[in-house]
Amino acid sequence: MHTALTLDSSSGKALPRLRYQPKVDQLLQEGQVELKALACPINPIDLLVLKDMYPVKPKNLWDGDKIFGYDGVFEVVKSQASSLGEGDYVIPREHGFGTWRTHATTGARDLLKIPRIDPRAAAILKMGACPAYLLLEDIVPLKPGDWIIQNAGTSVIGQFLVQYAKMRNVHTVSVIRDRPDFASVKLRLENLGADLVISESDLHCGGCKALEGKNIVLGLDCVFGSSGEAIAKSLAAGGTYVIFGLLGGGSLNIGPDVLFFKGVTFRNFRLSKSLTMRSVKEVDALLVCLADHFAKGDVKLPELDAVQWSKVNDEAQARQLEKRLLEAVEKARRGDVGKKKIIFSFE
Amino acid sequence: MHTALTLDSSSGKALPRLRYQPKVDQLLQEGQVELKALACPINPIDLLVLKDMYPVKPKNLWDGDKIFGYDGVFEVVKSQASSLGEGDYVIPREHGFGTWRTHATTGARDLLKIPRIDPRAAAILKMGACPAYLLLEDIVPLKPGDWIIQNAGTSVIGQFLVQYAKMRNVHTVSVIRDRPDFASVKLRLENLGADLVISESDLHCGGCKALEGKNIVLGLDCVFGSSGEAIAKSLAAGGTYVIFGLLGGGSLNIGPDVLFFKGVTFRNFRLSKSLTMRSVKEVDALLVCLADHFAKGDVKLPELDAVQWSKVNDEAQARQLEKRLLEAVEKARRGDVGKKKIIFSFE
Repeated sequence: MHTALTLDSSSGKALPRLRYQPKVDQLLQEGQVELKALACPINPIDLLVLKDMYPVKPKNLWDGDKIFGYDGVFEVVKSQASSLGEGDYVIPREHGFGTWRTHATTGARDLLKIPRIDPRAAAILKMGACPAYLLLEDIVPLKPGDWIIQNAGTSVIGQFLVQYAKMRNVHTVSVIRDRPDFASVKLRLENLGADLVISESDLHCGGCKALEGKNIVLGLDCVFGSSGEAIAKSLAAGGTYVIFGLLGGGSLNIGPDVLFFKGVTFRNFRLSKSLTMRSVKEVDALLVCLADHFAKGDVKLPELDAVQWSKVNDEAQARQLEKRLLEAVEKARRGDVGKKKIIFSFE
Repeated sequence: MHTALTLDSSSGKALPRLRYQPKVDQLLQEGQVELKALACPINPIDLLVLKDMYPVKPKNLWDGDKIFGYDGVFEVVKSQASSLGEGDYVIPREHGFGTWRTHATTGARDLLKIPRIDPRAAAILKMGACPAYLLLEDIVPLKPGDWIIQNAGTSVIGQFLVQYAKMRNVHTVSVIRDRPDFASVKLRLENLGADLVISESDLHCGGCKALEGKNIVLGLDCVFGSSGEAIAKSLAAGGTYVIFGLLGGGSLNIGPDVLFFKGVTFRNFRLSKSLTMRSVKEVDALLVCLADHFAKGDVKLPELDAVQWSKVNDEAQARQLEKRLLEAVEKARRGDVGKKKIIFSFE
């Protein structure tokens, strides 16, 4: 059967529900392809979409209900498009595609073909690997030996960042939340390439000793509030603070010392904006290049929490699957320490 | 007699005192010139230097005491330098020269020759006209029809800004503090070129109606605190906020709406940094160009409060003069509404 997580159009802001129906053979139009899902993540953006707080709304519907999920990888199973053939791996070109579903039929122009890499890597290529790469590329010119600092160091983007920074000989400080297994998480991040791993409480009080003498030119904040303030304060004169997520909420209190005297610049990073600055060809080349890093083994897959999106044959199985998927969404909503990114892996 | 405002080196952070001594004929070295003061302002930077809060310290001494004043114009009265002749107007090239004095002897290389314009205009050329010009030039590319907003609209820089913006067909909102003579001050700023003059309380509550639909791309804040926050909030998506002074103190509370969602960039402006980005030739050309604006009458002199720096013949007159000058410094320290920039005008 085909299944998808959708939002009942009549129920407003309720939780999503699982839709299911027997597979119906579709006649493909010229230029269309039929897809089978391989893997898709639950990203912060998806949670914002579910809360109706994200400006780009889901574009694809199932009987009038919005299909969720903005990132993921599919395999082409039938093609009437010259650019794509059976067995090709594709990811959606734009937000709003609806990746939380087992099957899809769409025009080839909506899709970007990528190398056949591990589907888990492919599923987080665009919204995990790509922003991490562009945060290093688009904000300030980074020279070998420069230091950068980031919070949420265990996040998928954080884990990519230390690896890409290492490739450029840029040093990284990863700030992670205080936790019982601090030492083992620290070791894991160091193995990925982090030069220094400190806790949020280190960063706030006294941990700055570890940062003394380091010319930190770039601060990457996806938490905001007091964590973001501490990131900004840790920067060298003339440094740049970037907000690219709001995991912690709150606001920033910025004093004249940081903004006026040290001349720190505060700005945001939006993946969509960075991609819009590039031609379609350049974006395609970038994503293929990032996929190649995985293919060659230059970049390791971050730790993920895979949830199986099983096949269903009847309503009872559908209700079981729905329960499991909604639990995964609920788990992703909670910002528990040590939580890994959840990814749906399709059977 | 020669007089100068200095700080007794033994007294630490006390108020400045007037030094005086009979004129002694000096033999000029090759490359040196003798100068007679024409006019010098009391700038916020001078008040910071007096409080020992500015990094660049006074470079010239009088019997071991620091001579204050960082901006002003002199006339050459004797010259042993080929580049300068008697009657030339000059301004110091660098901070720390010590302009609060009637006479000076220095190397010609420390000075920039400017056109013989009104000495009051010449005295505020470098730290009044120049930053106003560069705030429009160096932060964001401004197109005709763009809007900018600034607080402290009656400041010298504020009055230059509306005039320079008008030249570029850029629209200006000048925010000024609430005051009894609001209407007449508004009219005066509009006559200089301001498109919209609003009060601080307009800006904070409801005044935003006047700003609706205006694409404000640049916000110039020299106050900080709640006034700066309101400036930042008034900006269009993708706008830039610049801090270039701290007249009001406090700190900025920045929410995710402004920084993350609207993508406003926050940065500082330092005159010294903007000048360092240019070659000596370029800076010279810029200042001469700004002086020419005055010479041609393209730019009007802002309202100033001239305090006469009289000649003295004996100690009694020196004490009288000292009292008057120190009162002027004290007045400049107080941020009274309606206060005009104080400028010493030499007899």
